[in-house]
Amino acid sequence: MDKIVTQKLAQLRATMQVHQMDLVALGPGAHIQWLLGYHPYPDERMCLLLIGPEHQAFVMPALNANAVREHTDIEFFTWADADGYADALLGALEKTTDGNVAIVSLDDAMRADFALNLMAALPGANHCFTQDSVGALRMRKTEAEYRLLKMNAIIADGAQQAAADAVKVGVTENDVAEVVKNYFISHGAKPAFDIVGASENGAFPHHHTSDRALKQGDTIVVDIGGFKQGYPSDITRMVSIGEPSEEYKKVHAIVDAAVQAALKAAKPGVIAKHVDDAARSVIAKAGYGDYFTHRAGHGLGIEIHEPPYISASSEVVLDEGMVFSIEPGIYLPGKFGVRLEEIVILRADGPEILSERPRDLVVV
Amino acid sequence: MDKIVTQKLAQLRATMQVHQMDLVALGPGAHIQWLLGYHPYPDERMCLLLIGPEHQAFVMPALNANAVREHTDIEFFTWADADGYADALLGALEKTTDGNVAIVSLDDAMRADFALNLMAALPGANHCFTQDSVGALRMRKTEAEYRLLKMNAIIADGAQQAAADAVKVGVTENDVAEVVKNYFISHGAKPAFDIVGASENGAFPHHHTSDRALKQGDTIVVDIGGFKQGYPSDITRMVSIGEPSEEYKKVHAIVDAAVQAALKAAKPGVIAKHVDDAARSVIAKAGYGDYFTHRAGHGLGIEIHEPPYISASSEVVLDEGMVFSIEPGIYLPGKFGVRLEEIVILRADGPEILSERPRDLVVV
Repeated sequence: MDKIVTQKLAQLRATMQVHQMDLVALGPGAHIQWLLGYHPYPDERMCLLLIGPEHQAFVMPALNANAVREHTDIEFFTWADADGYADALLGALEKTTDGNVAIVSLDDAMRADFALNLMAALPGANHCFTQDSVGALRMRKTEAEYRLLKMNAIIADGAQQAAADAVKVGVTENDVAEVVKNYFISHGAKPAFDIVGASENGAFPHHHTSDRALKQGDTIVVDIGGFKQGYPSDITRMVSIGEPSEEYKKVHAIVDAAVQAALKAAKPGVIAKHVDDAARSVIAKAGYGDYFTHRAGHGLGIEIHEPPYISASSEVVLDEGMVFSIEPGIYLPGKFGVRLEEIVILRADGPEILSERPRDLVVV
Repeated sequence: MDKIVTQKLAQLRATMQVHQMDLVALGPGAHIQWLLGYHPYPDERMCLLLIGPEHQAFVMPALNANAVREHTDIEFFTWADADGYADALLGALEKTTDGNVAIVSLDDAMRADFALNLMAALPGANHCFTQDSVGALRMRKTEAEYRLLKMNAIIADGAQQAAADAVKVGVTENDVAEVVKNYFISHGAKPAFDIVGASENGAFPHHHTSDRALKQGDTIVVDIGGFKQGYPSDITRMVSIGEPSEEYKKVHAIVDAAVQAALKAAKPGVIAKHVDDAARSVIAKAGYGDYFTHRAGHGLGIEIHEPPYISASSEVVLDEGMVFSIEPGIYLPGKFGVRLEEIVILRADGPEILSERPRDLVVV
């Protein structure tokens, strides 16, 4: 077995012991990707990686067994379409557990039928999710992961510049998004998402980029990201056509102050909700509390959204090596939105911002 | 409410009554897409469409409420990141049920945490999945859906021709896949998947297209699909460089005979497993039974894989309007694979093949 996989399995078993989990069950997706550097083809056929106190095993559709075998030597319990998964699941459970399963840590994002069919095979067992097992381990990034995230952040900085260069009267939100996508592709990255929201559209935090043409006086939210070498970028900056209104300038300054307050609050040992609160307080004190409608940030790694979440209800204790966004926003319905987003890695003395692009409004 | 949505909700409630389901719960994905022609942004925030005997309601992250509101007037129970979903879920359950929920039909593909957190809010309730509710309705396509699938099939025929034109000594599997992708894009379709597997690689049914260069004598599996206007294509054909071996010709003829046998067996009223059996018997009788390692087919609609599944264990009774693949294959490890795949819509008198491309080997 690969040395990194062996090491990660040992880390995982240590968390299982602490939390008295008898079994960790993962579906094809980000958790297995983190553990094996690869994940099996996800479809409706039951595919589960089961990790017990001493042994691990895959419940594996026969169809995919050869392809997955190239990436791992973990034992497979295969099943064919004609027979169904039941015997394979029983075999894998016998291999990984002693038959007494009290607590299973379930991959939160796996298919509902995988999870419920597994639980049906474990009568009497209770479930928790993976926030204390794989999720907890994934939050702390290695230096190798940091380098990949940094590389992606620099590419995204370039994509932001390309977007700003593309903004002018008459082009559409979609045109700007197209420029961003092409920039990512020409730099070896796969475009993952783009929110280009002009003025009133920017007031929807998750606006779907549209054919709305840009016009004089627009202020534009540009929130973009791409994937390269398995890791993403995610950055939000603001662009305007012509000098913005005094109201806009005021709101932009408040959002930037909220970013700075959160940066200052984020230290190892601090609870995530206090970072959310630092950003939120700045905005509330300025009178815009009702217009900051989402959490202050989210973790970033194999997935664009992953723990730690920086929200008012997040009890995660921040630690060195954690990577997350700080992205407060103010959304004024019918007028405009302002969001400024940094991705940071938490160091001993505080956050290091990955992007090298200023948060200033770019006026074109 | 949109007339089509109203009609689909009525159909759905009729199936709920037959199967004594008190609630149908759907996550952002293909089932909601079918029902509303749209689905909310899927992320880790709990988003559920609950459908009870008389009322329906969304559990909706506040962040996405405005964007989703543009597509539906179904009542929302929104929740903010700071507060969590619990109250919104209770509100939506009070709206859609009378408090006595014995059976919930759960979206099989939704996130495990959505499903298990919903079930935790319904103590005493049992679950089934959506194969008898939304799944059953989605199997039967309307003529409008048929026209979209037909259009996509014709585009995919063109992509197969482009692939065959690209095959020559020295180009790689990835090069051929690139040509296919570009063909889809230039015809307004979004490439969805491509399996280009030369000789020994073709013996893996789910081969990952690679940088393997094509050489004289190769026989190549080309299994491709794209999406246009929300519906997919999926077609497999074979190409060879130079005349193939006698063994290849024999195997190709057996696979084609298996396709024909399945086409002949597929009639309204027939159980899906008998169509699988028709294809499988041909291959088994020819002595290759051990090398046909997957089911004979799968449904196709909003998703590339959806009910009805044509497998040895599938008890679905086929009916007019169902769309599915017939795609037997023979995979000889280390040598080559042959798969031939048609998408059909079941008519009163049998299957209508959507593709207009012959299944003959293309020798270049």
